[in-house]
Amino acid sequence: MDFTDLVKARQSVRAYDPDRPVPRELIAECLEAARLAPSACNSQPWRFVVVDEPSLLERVKREVVGGLVPNRWAAQAPVIVVLAAVKELGTASLGEGIKDIPYHLMDCGSAGEHFILRATELGLGTCWIGWFRIRALRRLLGLPRRWKPLALITLGYTPADWQPRQRLRRPLDETAFLNTPRTPWPSGRD
Amino acid sequence: MDFTDLVKARQSVRAYDPDRPVPRELIAECLEAARLAPSACNSQPWRFVVVDEPSLLERVKREVVGGLVPNRWAAQAPVIVVLAAVKELGTASLGEGIKDIPYHLMDCGSAGEHFILRATELGLGTCWIGWFRIRALRRLLGLPRRWKPLALITLGYTPADWQPRQRLRRPLDETAFLNTPRTPWPSGRD
Repeated sequence: MDFTDLVKARQSVRAYDPDRPVPRELIAECLEAARLAPSACNSQPWRFVVVDEPSLLERVKREVVGGLVPNRWAAQAPVIVVLAAVKELGTASLGEGIKDIPYHLMDCGSAGEHFILRATELGLGTCWIGWFRIRALRRLLGLPRRWKPLALITLGYTPADWQPRQRLRRPLDETAFLNTPRTPWPSGRD
Repeated sequence: MDFTDLVKARQSVRAYDPDRPVPRELIAECLEAARLAPSACNSQPWRFVVVDEPSLLERVKREVVGGLVPNRWAAQAPVIVVLAAVKELGTASLGEGIKDIPYHLMDCGSAGEHFILRATELGLGTCWIGWFRIRALRRLLGLPRRWKPLALITLGYTPADWQPRQRLRRPLDETAFLNTPRTPWPSGRD
């Protein structure tokens, strides 16, 4: 499948088959795709912690995402991946200070998306989770102080009866422009 | 090519054939891939402005990236794309305020990377540029005040004699971990 098809196949999957584990070789493939992501001054500010050990995973579900109503579905996920950013001293960090653009967050977005797209290609479902208890996560996993947890990514196979939903996006001419922000991109509406 | 091959094919291309224009149909393909990126609460906070009109492009090169030594190569690019973030009021923005994680920057990183990966697949070279004159860009293009320019992306065909460079990345066991940050991902070194 070409990249556009892959992008269309990616969905926020909120239903998992809890009895079908994800082989670590496949998780390694996703991590490898993330590893190759670009970053400002090649700083590679992302850190991934893959949680698949059953008792720890249960605690993450209960203490870090549990009780948050929008995330109840996450209880079925056989793997939860923590994405954190680490900001080190260096050229990229210097640039951030001068220009007030936190490149490391954009870079972590790229790397997380690489992980997710490779998972999609391997037939795995994923979902970005932004609502979770940061302090509980820090404590439970013993994250280094200079790591900033940004997101969780659920990972697993979808149940046999899972159906993709319709994708809702703004038409291109609302977010893309030609030469000036006053000229919407000249495309037909989808 | 599968996603890992695509990710490996992507490089920061800093040499362009200035005489080979990029058809707008191909730029539209890249924008479409970006449009389908995921975002917190589907907020789609990215805005792309494609600059390919020759006199405006020259001004962007001279006034926005010109004179910055690391970007001299950008003078050859036949297209420069501005990526900006717009932060609107909504659930995603509320979440950011509560959790102090600027999701919209991660989302823009994802969308920009979608753009770049589709361009790579179409045989086009790209490079993320983080060093540029934000105020000069705002003024020249008349960007709305609530848009925050994050990056420029150069776009074009590489010269016939262009050679890819070696890719330098940390090995996986320095950025990925299993269940705890004290257990490096058990992979062979590449």
